Amino acid sequence: MADQYVQTLDGEQPPGLDSLRWDELPEGPVLVLLDQRRLPAEEAELVCTDVPALVEAIRTLAVRGAPLLGIAGAYGVALAAARGYDVAEAASLLEAARPTAVNLGYGVRRAAGAYETAAGRGADTEQAAAAVLAEARQLHREDAEASKRMAWHGLALLDELLPGGSHRVLTHCNTGRLVSGGEGTAFAVALAAHRAGRLRRLWVDETRPLLQGARLTAYEAARNGMAYTLLTDNAAGSLFAAGEVDAVLVGADRIAVDGSVANKVGSYPLAVLARYHHVPFIVVAPTTTVDPATPDGASIEVEQRPGQEVTELPAPEMVTGVTALPEPRSSEAASGAPGAPVAPVGTQAYNPAFDVTPPELVTAIVTEEGAVSPVTGAGIAELCSRSRQVTIS
Amino acid sequence: MADQYVQTLDGEQPPGLDSLRWDELPEGPVLVLLDQRRLPAEEAELVCTDVPALVEAIRTLAVRGAPLLGIAGAYGVALAAARGYDVAEAASLLEAARPTAVNLGYGVRRAAGAYETAAGRGADTEQAAAAVLAEARQLHREDAEASKRMAWHGLALLDELLPGGSHRVLTHCNTGRLVSGGEGTAFAVALAAHRAGRLRRLWVDETRPLLQGARLTAYEAARNGMAYTLLTDNAAGSLFAAGEVDAVLVGADRIAVDGSVANKVGSYPLAVLARYHHVPFIVVAPTTTVDPATPDGASIEVEQRPGQEVTELPAPEMVTGVTALPEPRSSEAASGAPGAPVAPVGTQAYNPAFDVTPPELVTAIVTEEGAVSPVTGAGIAELCSRSRQVTIS
Repeated sequence: MADQYVQTLDGEQPPGLDSLRWDELPEGPVLVLLDQRRLPAEEAELVCTDVPALVEAIRTLAVRGAPLLGIAGAYGVALAAARGYDVAEAASLLEAARPTAVNLGYGVRRAAGAYETAAGRGADTEQAAAAVLAEARQLHREDAEASKRMAWHGLALLDELLPGGSHRVLTHCNTGRLVSGGEGTAFAVALAAHRAGRLRRLWVDETRPLLQGARLTAYEAARNGMAYTLLTDNAAGSLFAAGEVDAVLVGADRIAVDGSVANKVGSYPLAVLARYHHVPFIVVAPTTTVDPATPDGASIEVEQRPGQEVTELPAPEMVTGVTALPEPRSSEAASGAPGAPVAPVGTQAYNPAFDVTPPELVTAIVTEEGAVSPVTGAGIAELCSRSRQVTIS
Repeated sequence: MADQYVQTLDGEQPPGLDSLRWDELPEGPVLVLLDQRRLPAEEAELVCTDVPALVEAIRTLAVRGAPLLGIAGAYGVALAAARGYDVAEAASLLEAARPTAVNLGYGVRRAAGAYETAAGRGADTEQAAAAVLAEARQLHREDAEASKRMAWHGLALLDELLPGGSHRVLTHCNTGRLVSGGEGTAFAVALAAHRAGRLRRLWVDETRPLLQGARLTAYEAARNGMAYTLLTDNAAGSLFAAGEVDAVLVGADRIAVDGSVANKVGSYPLAVLARYHHVPFIVVAPTTTVDPATPDGASIEVEQRPGQEVTELPAPEMVTGVTALPEPRSSEAASGAPGAPVAPVGTQAYNPAFDVTPPELVTAIVTEEGAVSPVTGAGIAELCSRSRQVTIS
């Protein structure tokens, strides 16, 4: 068992409860995670004092979400450096914790690179450790800053598209603080609207099969005092038909050069419904989500996830909080948990991880550099070039 | 405890396992139900020897599905008559078992009417009981016959629309033998295509929140040896986008005079997706589904079901088979079962029981009297008038 322990929080935490924070304790630095496996039943922090503990937390989904994993990975390297462990070995352990998580590798390599650069310049161990921590904090800050700017641009766009000023927003999956160093992407826009007094209702898709909407987005909405309502994914059609949706806000896993958006399965049907009902369909994602190696939607390979996510219901401990930490698993997600079968034995399932929405169905893509609408390859390239200048300068 | 008992079947039953059958045992007549609460984990028959037992089976969803409930209700009255109980009292108990189930009341009243007619003509108790049983069997036969004719007309339509002869059909909810005296509605068409060697794939929506697709349609498909694949409702969009759906087949809870179709929530989004992808969206339902008192879609009041169906996962015993009968509940559906919470305490849910698809999105409505396409009020009225002639003659 790696060196991690749990502290249960009382209910009096501020709305901005951190998904992750670095803490300097008398006995040494630690990385403190909000244990997402226990949500929404329980808000418990998981304190990681070494890299194996963090690896276990990543593998068992105590911490998840693309940008947040990058930040966690960077802090993991910082933890190894500060506690005098082998930094290269720590980086390699962390990168392997979830091999397909692109952001995790990015954060780890960026932190490890900072260590090497410092060491190469003749820094001693303590100075090199400080350099890594500074890099992790910088990544954390950049992500939080990107959230803020996406929220600002997104709210401005909502207000422009919907001058009425009382927005009923439908969202899918989880795109808030739990996946981000800041307040997230699509959720951050809805939260900004809420704070500005212009969110009338947040419609939360439950997001089968892993129910991130029900478990995590509803939790974040409740915690922020937003007016929200949960629905099964297939009930969104009724809301559109009843004229109860003013805009759809979703995140993105990857954006192709032509503006095609890969996001959690169920996003594309919302885009089609939105088009049929003349409702804006808005994608909110940082410019880093644009993949220059993916020219168009057809080039996006859609990952198929395990069929058990569909043929079995999630095990109760994955959805109601756990009292003991689950065993570490090598599988990528909650699908590895044994669940209750709902379909006949031997049932084959079609379980794509995400779907692809073509640019013509996307009203706008909102990034930290501004929004592009209509969505064109040229417009996206322009935003990305601005972003690159910012990063380089 | 009412007088019912369970007999577990071996796995060697024929594909056409009855959802319900009347049996004459040495100790008296009984109504034998396939216990749907135990599916798909276990095929067990529930033997009802009196009306309270049947009422309990109806209330606890051992038997369900609109047409099947009507047939069960009629046989229930026959059971009371055959066993010498008060027929009027039995009818009133049965009607109250699920007050909102229109077909249940129809079947019960039709059987009770046959008893009264016979008694009014001076029949003795035994003769009157025989008359009720004959009426129940007639209703059962009519429903089975309607299934056959819907399947025939539906397959003819599929073949006409899709001359390729290798159909990939997407369906939603459960519309097969488990809801019918015969082989059902939409499912019966897919089954006919399968038997004719022209079903390439049946795509089965899991159908949240109660998972009738995963639990029951997948079970029926497996039992009939059909090539089927289960998916979360929100994954259907990906199938359409990939060109993997040739037609959508769904049933109907109610059809308005103008051709608007109320059906299980999630049907309407499929109709919008089908339209966007130029795929036929076909509704299969008997003419009795057309409600002359409902002029159009706007007149259909959409029932909201309990939020717990969304905020909690179904209790394992509701999805994996039970070893003891659950306590009778007065609630209408499985939602009464205590489940595992997935959303934060206090989460409000939007949980419409069904949605409404306007006639312009329905490629065809297939009834036992033939298909109407395009869907117009006049076309539907014509089919219904044919049906009325058949019933009256």
